[in-house]
Amino acid sequence: MAPPLSDLQHVDCARRLSTSALLSTDPNPRVGCVIVDALGRRLGSGCTQPVGGPHAEVMALRDAAAEGHSVVGATAYVTLEPCAHHGRTGPCCDALIAAGIRRVVASIADPNPLVSGQGFDRLRAAGVDVEVGPGAVESRELNIGFFSRMVRKTPWVRLKTAASLDGKTALSNGVSQWITGEPARTDGHAWRARASAVLTGVGTLMEDDPRLDVRRVETPRQPHLVVVDSRLQTPPDAKIFDVPHRQVWLYAATRDEPRARALEARGATVTVLANADGKVDLAAMLQDLAAREVNELHVEAGHKLNGSLMREGLVDELLVYLAPKFIGSGLEMASQPNAGGALTTLAGALPLEFRSVDRFGPDLRIVARVAGRDRF
Amino acid sequence: MAPPLSDLQHVDCARRLSTSALLSTDPNPRVGCVIVDALGRRLGSGCTQPVGGPHAEVMALRDAAAEGHSVVGATAYVTLEPCAHHGRTGPCCDALIAAGIRRVVASIADPNPLVSGQGFDRLRAAGVDVEVGPGAVESRELNIGFFSRMVRKTPWVRLKTAASLDGKTALSNGVSQWITGEPARTDGHAWRARASAVLTGVGTLMEDDPRLDVRRVETPRQPHLVVVDSRLQTPPDAKIFDVPHRQVWLYAATRDEPRARALEARGATVTVLANADGKVDLAAMLQDLAAREVNELHVEAGHKLNGSLMREGLVDELLVYLAPKFIGSGLEMASQPNAGGALTTLAGALPLEFRSVDRFGPDLRIVARVAGRDRF
Repeated sequence: MAPPLSDLQHVDCARRLSTSALLSTDPNPRVGCVIVDALGRRLGSGCTQPVGGPHAEVMALRDAAAEGHSVVGATAYVTLEPCAHHGRTGPCCDALIAAGIRRVVASIADPNPLVSGQGFDRLRAAGVDVEVGPGAVESRELNIGFFSRMVRKTPWVRLKTAASLDGKTALSNGVSQWITGEPARTDGHAWRARASAVLTGVGTLMEDDPRLDVRRVETPRQPHLVVVDSRLQTPPDAKIFDVPHRQVWLYAATRDEPRARALEARGATVTVLANADGKVDLAAMLQDLAAREVNELHVEAGHKLNGSLMREGLVDELLVYLAPKFIGSGLEMASQPNAGGALTTLAGALPLEFRSVDRFGPDLRIVARVAGRDRF
Repeated sequence: MAPPLSDLQHVDCARRLSTSALLSTDPNPRVGCVIVDALGRRLGSGCTQPVGGPHAEVMALRDAAAEGHSVVGATAYVTLEPCAHHGRTGPCCDALIAAGIRRVVASIADPNPLVSGQGFDRLRAAGVDVEVGPGAVESRELNIGFFSRMVRKTPWVRLKTAASLDGKTALSNGVSQWITGEPARTDGHAWRARASAVLTGVGTLMEDDPRLDVRRVETPRQPHLVVVDSRLQTPPDAKIFDVPHRQVWLYAATRDEPRARALEARGATVTVLANADGKVDLAAMLQDLAAREVNELHVEAGHKLNGSLMREGLVDELLVYLAPKFIGSGLEMASQPNAGGALTTLAGALPLEFRSVDRFGPDLRIVARVAGRDRF
């Protein structure tokens, strides 16, 4: 039976609260909570605070208390299963039970297979009614990176590129600044801001010396920076080291000791993960990044690294800005993206699904998902 | 002073009638007409009939008469200046005057510089009030090809291509069927249907042997077919000759007499227009096509001919279907599209303007106009 309309309205309110926390909760999921009395009046609401701070449920309980409302017998709408374990904070289940909450409507179970369902069990054991499901798709989508890290043990990999209508990301001479206009570049920073980390290749660092931080939008937090740098060629005076409040993680195929020390002196963490070809093992790197609590990984790299990630089947989503230009000869979005070399049948092409198309100033933004990659 | 709302409503009704004639009026413009009495009641309406038939104004007058309405003292709303000359039909001005129309509201003047304004003059000389302007942009846009032929003496050139998200129109081995899905291909036929003629290159004929007719949508008329075929290599048994009720115009750089005769025996018209490089003079071909009353020219060709048309600055609009696929190595939309060879600065890239983006099944359709090409 579908939940009554009022339930859906409260769930939607909780969802909006969760979305408001898009940039701030990392590496925790974005969660919202609304507490409602038997007559449908909102007693309190909240969303997950920055890491180490309270979760959404506790914020909602505090909000109700601050307003002088009793929540005894009330319903809590929350976009993710309340936690049952002592992590950086106490278990939200205990707080809800202690406050006298009688019913919990949760959008979706915690994706962590080790704890999934424990929160619901604990609530039910204390006599709380539990319903699960309303808003599940939206909650999972908002936290696709967290779900990916918990279930697949790798981040959600989103590859950003900007190209002309004919698919060229730069001229043959490498010039690429700027193919797209200000609104598209600002939107690109908003996507950086929601990611746990930005990934690039040493080639991009050496050619453009970018900072790869978030500047064009306000953010409470800078994503960390990951560099694929097989031979540790990152210049120790690269601008990436000038950004405070973020970590720089370099992945190399071999540890050149003097170079590694110079880079570590700049604050970088050097990790050696080589594959059989003597290059960085990208799949292992993603596992390592998940262990570092990277949920969404935002890739801004050149066509070679883009091609390697695609060829190895590591890309989940493409964020493509198309500019109203025709370049002709130039650099590709991704070189050699197919594992078997040049395709001989169209059936071999990487299948995508267009999720959205929007205009940013003169440019288009296309979000395309690699077909089936979100089914985990 | 802006016209009163009722005027705009009647103009919009006339515009909708003109749009209903999208596929049928060629080579005449698509025009709609509504006749309204002093109280705002619609007395009659009509649109341009297929070539040789009555224009919109006469259809509207006949419609009013068939309903038993007198139009004496009425207002005629028409999306293009009524004609003042004896062409395939009598002058519409005379018909409006004879019927007693007291006021004419026309969207835009006839683009033909030889007759522009004569219709308005004739109406005014007969004591008819004339207003010009409401709906001008829409009327010109609907008839962009007619306006182009009248003003520039060349057709409006719309280049259609279907590509993967990374801009590849075929695999390296030439396989391109089908990159896009059924809905996009059906929409492609709708764009063929509105064109006066479809243009392709002999390479496409020899590789795919297409018919290049309109099949997936209903149409009262087949666009003619134009083939760029420098050395008259079109096979006389090509499927393009199997389509009835259209002409096939071959443009060659030299007249190989036996080949020409064999193709003429199949109904083709062979025209020799060579440039200094011994290839077909594409600019001269467009002038010749305008002389053949081609308004909109729909290009479906390979990357070489596409590149030549773009390099010579002959393309007005791009109709690009993007499929949710990533192909990697493959054929480009247009090879060597820039006159000066590979670009060295982004400022040299052909500037476009995105006009619309729509979804057709899994694919996207992007209409992009070469910046400034519609300002003539």
